[in-house]
Amino acid sequence: MTSTDSQDIARLMDDLGRRARAAAGEIALAPGPVRDQALRAAAQAIRANAETILAANAQDMAAGEAKGLSAALLDRLLLNPARLESVAKGLEEIADRPDPLGAVLEEWTRPNGLRFSKVRVPLGVIAIIFESRPNVTADAGALCLKSGNAAILRGGSESIRSARAILACLHQGLDAAGLPRDAIQMPTTTDRAAVGELLTMTRWVDVVIPRGGKSLTGRVAAESRVPVIYHLDGICHVYLDKDADPEKARRVVLNAKMRRTGICGAAETLLVHQDVAANLLPAILDDLIKAGCEVRGDAGVQALDARVLPATEEDWDTEYLDAILSVKLVADVDAAIAHIARHSSHHTDSIITENADAAERFLARVDSGIVLHNASTQFADGGEFGFGAEIGISTGKLHARGPVGAEQLTSYKYVVRGDGHTRP
Amino acid sequence: MTSTDSQDIARLMDDLGRRARAAAGEIALAPGPVRDQALRAAAQAIRANAETILAANAQDMAAGEAKGLSAALLDRLLLNPARLESVAKGLEEIADRPDPLGAVLEEWTRPNGLRFSKVRVPLGVIAIIFESRPNVTADAGALCLKSGNAAILRGGSESIRSARAILACLHQGLDAAGLPRDAIQMPTTTDRAAVGELLTMTRWVDVVIPRGGKSLTGRVAAESRVPVIYHLDGICHVYLDKDADPEKARRVVLNAKMRRTGICGAAETLLVHQDVAANLLPAILDDLIKAGCEVRGDAGVQALDARVLPATEEDWDTEYLDAILSVKLVADVDAAIAHIARHSSHHTDSIITENADAAERFLARVDSGIVLHNASTQFADGGEFGFGAEIGISTGKLHARGPVGAEQLTSYKYVVRGDGHTRP
Repeated sequence: MTSTDSQDIARLMDDLGRRARAAAGEIALAPGPVRDQALRAAAQAIRANAETILAANAQDMAAGEAKGLSAALLDRLLLNPARLESVAKGLEEIADRPDPLGAVLEEWTRPNGLRFSKVRVPLGVIAIIFESRPNVTADAGALCLKSGNAAILRGGSESIRSARAILACLHQGLDAAGLPRDAIQMPTTTDRAAVGELLTMTRWVDVVIPRGGKSLTGRVAAESRVPVIYHLDGICHVYLDKDADPEKARRVVLNAKMRRTGICGAAETLLVHQDVAANLLPAILDDLIKAGCEVRGDAGVQALDARVLPATEEDWDTEYLDAILSVKLVADVDAAIAHIARHSSHHTDSIITENADAAERFLARVDSGIVLHNASTQFADGGEFGFGAEIGISTGKLHARGPVGAEQLTSYKYVVRGDGHTRP
Repeated sequence: MTSTDSQDIARLMDDLGRRARAAAGEIALAPGPVRDQALRAAAQAIRANAETILAANAQDMAAGEAKGLSAALLDRLLLNPARLESVAKGLEEIADRPDPLGAVLEEWTRPNGLRFSKVRVPLGVIAIIFESRPNVTADAGALCLKSGNAAILRGGSESIRSARAILACLHQGLDAAGLPRDAIQMPTTTDRAAVGELLTMTRWVDVVIPRGGKSLTGRVAAESRVPVIYHLDGICHVYLDKDADPEKARRVVLNAKMRRTGICGAAETLLVHQDVAANLLPAILDDLIKAGCEVRGDAGVQALDARVLPATEEDWDTEYLDAILSVKLVADVDAAIAHIARHSSHHTDSIITENADAAERFLARVDSGIVLHNASTQFADGGEFGFGAEIGISTGKLHARGPVGAEQLTSYKYVVRGDGHTRP
């Protein structure tokens, strides 16, 4: 890239940021029903333009095949009529949810008569950097719009034609509601330098959300000068306590690992109280292995089933995102908590027990965004929480933790009303 | 600095961070009354060790004078019996406030019977980087302890003896409550490289809070890989609307500018509706100038009082922190809002008017952490909000906005209780 190119990109992104900031001011003040109208009109536009979108997607698929993308990547990239309908429905579901803005979070009056209220407001301009799933264009744009934020969407080049076709429908929605198209923008360039600009435009961008694999999130976390809401790994644990109910244990472990192995809430490590391992584990290991799961265990676990492979130290820090589970025996609930403190990614961890004390101890001491008792880690999902759509699960502790839905894309301001009050 | 030194500092800081993380786990679980007991015992220790602290402070003062520190800096550095008593009292006031931890922020049950609760938890390890005020050691350490966080305090070298003497008292408080001294630490080195380590120890530090002038905050914002809660400028505005009550206007402007000129909530720019300037401004300008304030105005303002100096473009972006005010005439409330959007630091802005529509328009559209109606900008203070002590006023929108007290130093986690629930 020549320096002229890089200056062009800087100028292009600066202009885009400036327009996003202006649009943010407008949509922050648009009434909830108007923002919802834009979402519903966008859903209709997606249905009306299904052929165009699918044709653009076919071009992306052809280019991806020519480039030799893996079958998994191609599947993420693929749109078909059913998937597109679920994109449109997703927009309508977001429209149906309550308006996150304007709520008065707290109100109080001070002895001097000053009246305080803390009200929910948008964050401003949100940049979302994602990989190849074209539906993220719709989800992310819609969540930002619902929460009164302007969005800058920067998708991977593999899905750029599909993403642009969907963006055109979002723009039709904005048009129908009389809102500015600049409220949802995509850079016209796919140059990677554009990402660098997004991460440093602190004047125009209030928060960056990477949505994708570790290398993307790692780059964003390392380079960004703009605050980041990020999801790092999902190294989720299930701990089977001494007082675990055998049936619940069996059911939850199989679900936590095998329901879907590629999502961040899938369990990666199973910890088992050593006193009940001989009793509980054989059936559980058999379930897993019969379901196609590779099990890697410490010596105690290997002794219970000859099909268990040896686990190495590295296994305890690995997010497989695959049909592999590491299994370890621990002395008690505190040893399980200590293992999790050392190896968890602070995402989601679960205890299975009928013992209320052990459960409360685990729930209080495990420092993860989501802690569960007698339930599968696969519930780590905004929809399962009742939040509707989400943009990811935050593993950070600042601002938003756990599922990030429309409400988590807001901030607040203090409104103070007086009558000529001066401070003594 | 040789590379061995720099490795030593890295090792030193890594060890300190590791111990802070371990202590954070302990104090997060310490009951509120135990944390409060530590605060009260620390206050007593400060009273019992007043002579030692004042002697250490006298050494800092002598070194500062020898170094040629300005009178303003020396005044910030100075402790005397009255100031020290207010430090001790501050600790007791923090102890008296309700426990921010453990509160259940929301609770709900999903149709499948899963019970969700969102509970308040500490952030973990907080690094506070500050300049020469020795009382910040006590305030910052106490706010972190109150909110169940471990603190790493890194003060300026000018106040290091005073800060260490106060830290010793905080440690006596922790001892008395059976809490680990590692919950409040100061690096043993004053080398500036230690700050660089704090800003990159993402494994041990959850959030960094700079407390000081622009050059400190700027360095932290530019270099930190750890999330930052920061306060940039306080370029605060008062807007006198067409329907401003003259008496309220006069009272509030004088207070907003002159009550204390060196604090972040002091007004720096006065905007005046052009239709009422001739009526309102002469008395206000006279008040200000008689009180020792330099007034810089645009042509319209200069025409009203010969003592007004000309304002330059730069004035609208300047935080004077001094007895200087820039004054500008605007066409209407929207022009005032536009000026603020361009020049405000999103800290605190106030409208003076008897017109409810204008007030609501201003309060809704000005995108600042604190917006006021008919009240002085000097109310931008945690104590005036009823929050008790604060560690600063956040001008960021992520996580905490406005005054940052103990409650703003917390995060939350989701606790989910089931009965063997698996996800379909």
